[in-house]
Amino acid sequence: MNEPACPLCPPPLTEPLWSADDCYVIAAAEPDWPGFCRVIWRAHVGEMTDLEPLARARVLEVVFAVEAALREVCAPDKVNLASLGNMVPHLHWHVIPRWRDDATFPGAVWAPAQRPAPAREVDLAVLRAAVVQRLA
Amino acid sequence: MNEPACPLCPPPLTEPLWSADDCYVIAAAEPDWPGFCRVIWRAHVGEMTDLEPLARARVLEVVFAVEAALREVCAPDKVNLASLGNMVPHLHWHVIPRWRDDATFPGAVWAPAQRPAPAREVDLAVLRAAVVQRLA
Repeated sequence: MNEPACPLCPPPLTEPLWSADDCYVIAAAEPDWPGFCRVIWRAHVGEMTDLEPLARARVLEVVFAVEAALREVCAPDKVNLASLGNMVPHLHWHVIPRWRDDATFPGAVWAPAQRPAPAREVDLAVLRAAVVQRLA
Repeated sequence: MNEPACPLCPPPLTEPLWSADDCYVIAAAEPDWPGFCRVIWRAHVGEMTDLEPLARARVLEVVFAVEAALREVCAPDKVNLASLGNMVPHLHWHVIPRWRDDATFPGAVWAPAQRPAPAREVDLAVLRAAVVQRLA
C-alpha cells in the first residue's frame, strides 16, 4: 500500500486537525492563506476514480466537513477545492479559504501573486473544534 | 435562481458534451489542455456546501464520469479536479487531463507556463461517447 518515495505515505509530521483510520486533515503551512487545510487519504492512491464509490464519498464527506467548518470559522469570500497531485500523486484535497484581498484572488492560489497577502489569522483550535464537531 | 450578471446562468453557448436538467458537461476552450472539461451545475449556487448532500453526490457522479472517460480516452499522466469559482461564483468543476510535458506541469494549470504546450489532440466525439456511456 505504501510507496517508499512518497512523502504522503508516512504518518503526518504535524499533529492533524482531525484523524481517522482512512484519512486525516492537516492545517497547511501556507501563511498567505490561513485556514488552508489538506485532506489526505492514507492509502497510496492516485486518482479519485481509483477509489471505490464508497471511499470517494468518504473522502468528500471529510472535504465538505472542512469546507463547512472553514465557512463557519473564517467566513471567507469563497472556498476553493482542488485535488491535483501533480507533484505528489497520492490522493489529497486542498480546501482553501479565499478572500478578495488575498495574494492571488481572483486567480487560483497557484497563480502569480497580484499583491501582498494582508495579515489575517485563523484560530486553529477553533477550526479544529469545528471540523471535529462535523465529523463526530 | 438566476443571477442576471452571471455568465454561467444562461444556457451554454456551445453544445455540451453531455447535458441533463441539473447540470451539463462542456469541452473547455483550453487549447493547451485538450480534453479539459467543465461540469456546470445549472442552478446559481456558490459552494458545494450550499447544495444538499444528494445534489453534491450528483455533481460529483458527473465529475467522476468525466474523469473516468478522460482516463480511458486520453490516458493522461494525471487528472486534476478543481472547484474554484473565484471569477465566476457559480458552481462548476474543472476536470483536467495533465501530461508531464504540458505547459505548466507539475504546477497547476493556473501556474506560469514553464514550456510551450506540445501538440496533442483529443477526439471530442470519442470523449463525448465515453462520457455519455458512463452517465447513461
